[in-house]
Amino acid sequence: MTISMYQVSIPRFVHMLNNLAVILDRAQAYAEAKKIDAATLPSARLYPDMLPLTSQVRIACDTAKRAAALLAGVDNPVYEDNETTLSELKARVERTIGFLNTIRAAQVDGTENREIVVKVGGKDTPFKGMQFLLARAIPNFYFHVTTAYDILRHNGLDVGKKDFLGNTTAS
Amino acid sequence: MTISMYQVSIPRFVHMLNNLAVILDRAQAYAEAKKIDAATLPSARLYPDMLPLTSQVRIACDTAKRAAALLAGVDNPVYEDNETTLSELKARVERTIGFLNTIRAAQVDGTENREIVVKVGGKDTPFKGMQFLLARAIPNFYFHVTTAYDILRHNGLDVGKKDFLGNTTAS
Repeated sequence: MTISMYQVSIPRFVHMLNNLAVILDRAQAYAEAKKIDAATLPSARLYPDMLPLTSQVRIACDTAKRAAALLAGVDNPVYEDNETTLSELKARVERTIGFLNTIRAAQVDGTENREIVVKVGGKDTPFKGMQFLLARAIPNFYFHVTTAYDILRHNGLDVGKKDFLGNTTAS
Repeated sequence: MTISMYQVSIPRFVHMLNNLAVILDRAQAYAEAKKIDAATLPSARLYPDMLPLTSQVRIACDTAKRAAALLAGVDNPVYEDNETTLSELKARVERTIGFLNTIRAAQVDGTENREIVVKVGGKDTPFKGMQFLLARAIPNFYFHVTTAYDILRHNGLDVGKKDFLGNTTAS
């Protein structure tokens, strides 16, 4: 096995999003057991001007699907951003996994030098594919998955880093 | 440029640790301006049974240096874990960057199938180099850098995601 643009991106996004789906299920069970209002955890945030859980999950999904679409050269599916509950957020995560699983290694491998233009600070900014993936997409993706986890931990959900990492030997 | 085990690891760890050093400087200036006791931010945590900022920064450093050492086949420098202030934590980050910068691409490239054994849940667990890097080291690294950031944001530090990501076009 040789490392490649595909290996570094699609399977890792899918793996982490599967872990996030499990954590959202745990949050749902926790909210039901503790009779926490359904809107409380989705709107929870770590500081008043930080984004709430809903946005953290949305952006984690968006970062993964946009990176996949830009690298593979396929349309980036448009979502409505209308989730308000944990189960709707989980559905977005699963929909994103479904899209990522349509991407084949041959579509992403060899895109190190593909020209990609994304907004940075509101300005169209050109990137090579590898720089975009390693310096923007991956850090951004992990930022939002981790912050979703941190918001839920801060609100008392009993999960640990093994839930965040998932089964690291299997996939 | 072709993606490689080195490209995916050492330069990205260095880049994110440089960003973390800047954020720790900002935290130091914030603590001084607000007359926050020097022990408050290093011991801050998001939940009573989560690790404090000090541990998040230590583990971010440790994850990067251990991955570098295991992949490159060099000794993993031992640190004393005695930091109690923001400036000591920043020094640990800078020391780690210094170590990472001693690692050459030729030492890490081609280690996809290197046998690596690490403890998982207390048990020695074998990994191939690529699986170890992509499934354990990188998610773990970003988890702790992000959680350090989240702890500081939760405590009122005025930083944003551009500080977390740093200059994504330059390095």
